[in-house]
Amino acid sequence: MTHAATQHQHDHSHHHHHSAPKGIYLISPSGAVADPSRIEMARERLGELGFRTVLDRAALAVHERFAGTDKQRLAGIARSLTQKQPIVMATRGGYGLSRLLPFIDWQAVADSGKIFIGQSDFTVFNLALLAKTGAPSYAGPTAVFDFGVKKVDELTADLFLECMRGELEILGFESPGSDPVDARGILWGGNLAMVASLVGTPYLPKIKGGILFLEDISEHPFRIERMLTQLWHAGVLARQKAIVLGRFTDYRLAAHDNGFDMPSVVRWLREHVKVPVVTGLPYGHVKVKATLPIGRKVGIATEDDMAHLVLEEHL
Amino acid sequence: MTHAATQHQHDHSHHHHHSAPKGIYLISPSGAVADPSRIEMARERLGELGFRTVLDRAALAVHERFAGTDKQRLAGIARSLTQKQPIVMATRGGYGLSRLLPFIDWQAVADSGKIFIGQSDFTVFNLALLAKTGAPSYAGPTAVFDFGVKKVDELTADLFLECMRGELEILGFESPGSDPVDARGILWGGNLAMVASLVGTPYLPKIKGGILFLEDISEHPFRIERMLTQLWHAGVLARQKAIVLGRFTDYRLAAHDNGFDMPSVVRWLREHVKVPVVTGLPYGHVKVKATLPIGRKVGIATEDDMAHLVLEEHL
Repeated sequence: MTHAATQHQHDHSHHHHHSAPKGIYLISPSGAVADPSRIEMARERLGELGFRTVLDRAALAVHERFAGTDKQRLAGIARSLTQKQPIVMATRGGYGLSRLLPFIDWQAVADSGKIFIGQSDFTVFNLALLAKTGAPSYAGPTAVFDFGVKKVDELTADLFLECMRGELEILGFESPGSDPVDARGILWGGNLAMVASLVGTPYLPKIKGGILFLEDISEHPFRIERMLTQLWHAGVLARQKAIVLGRFTDYRLAAHDNGFDMPSVVRWLREHVKVPVVTGLPYGHVKVKATLPIGRKVGIATEDDMAHLVLEEHL
Repeated sequence: MTHAATQHQHDHSHHHHHSAPKGIYLISPSGAVADPSRIEMARERLGELGFRTVLDRAALAVHERFAGTDKQRLAGIARSLTQKQPIVMATRGGYGLSRLLPFIDWQAVADSGKIFIGQSDFTVFNLALLAKTGAPSYAGPTAVFDFGVKKVDELTADLFLECMRGELEILGFESPGSDPVDARGILWGGNLAMVASLVGTPYLPKIKGGILFLEDISEHPFRIERMLTQLWHAGVLARQKAIVLGRFTDYRLAAHDNGFDMPSVVRWLREHVKVPVVTGLPYGHVKVKATLPIGRKVGIATEDDMAHLVLEEHL
């Protein structure tokens, strides 16, 4: 994935009067922030991009491996709903939201009208919000991973900015060998382990005819396949119009895998699930990362080894 | 867990005319057998215990990480149904049954009347059979892991033998700090990762008032908790009369776990799920291993830091 391989079109016309939301409220609903200096760097970088940031008072709390006790993390989420900043961003992922899901007031989250953004563990927040209220939110960069660095990836920053302004219209990416598809549906998904962990629970949105995107990190291909199998057996995959694969990174194959690898998994998926599979989405635990609206209607089309995700349509 | 800590009572009376099934048919429905000499050792050890063994002709097949192609492994399962050996044992676990589930004729499996036994990946076979037909099967030792050794663990062998003869009545084990419980219900469960992977699919039995036992290997406590959370959110845990924890072994904690460990997970479980939790079951990826009937009514009771699993009741 190079910058050159990803194209994005945005709207510079005056037909739309979107203005960029300027304030970001940072919360830590999952893992503890190991190095607070990364948050300082993130706030500087976001400042350079034109965002004022406010750090929730419990965002640097630590309890065991979590960013504070369950009560502290829940309080941080609740506080974010009443702040003046229109965007609420997770400082990082990790693990911690799963056990909080029954204790979050999802209607209050939806009614706040805030733009929630995060990734990885945050996937369960995105999906529970959608399942419980129908409200959209964003999968995208987090403070520590994407902005808590000396130089923010240019495309990641551009896509985030344009998405926050409602200006991003089309995201094109290299997608060699993708199945032919030209479909519209609700975009949803995120981290595969987190999506699979919601199957059979009230927090998995019941999306028919959707565009399901998935990514993961440090999961062996046999685990990826087992999680996809759960979605397959549960009937989730067959109900989608397309399965869009982001990056599956940082796994280690063993000698006894004997040729079994991610390409085997994708081949197996295509054989057993009669839904178009689109590869190459610039999303995952990687530097170059799209900002993606979960719960919004989008379009997906492939042609000549390129895929186009149409995020804003003019009807 | 020492031998001395586990008690088992069996029936030597002549009220019951169980005879020990003498033949075992070995199949490989999951991972490839890396070292065929382990199978030879297993057949010797099982022979010493009085069992004649027959190895399915595809049991040593290898395809990628699997014991043959999907077609080969399915054919092995199908062949096992028509052999004269009354017991069908998995050579080993690994990964591979999940993707075969829709292609197995479960009614034919149940109608065969065979005693199926395996563990780990085999959990999905046990549970799918129960879900689809109500037929019981066994979680217990496998050829390579438990019998493919120079000296078979004595208690594992005894419990297997007694269970195959229908003579094992009560399994007692040390269970310090267990919640008080005295209940009867359907015994089910197995490997936690495999149980969780079936949530939301047609292969998870809908057991109310059951005794759910769980174990796992090489899963970090946060993953154990996330899988338990899926069972919790899906309503599975609240419907059980007891949750019986076997061995959770071979995971590695990190510095940033900062005190989070399996005991934290068990504390969290007890706080959130109002079902008695019983620890110490001699079952898991460990040498000392009970043979447990999945899908049969059992009793569980705790007293004075001991638990008793009543496997055969005289009504």
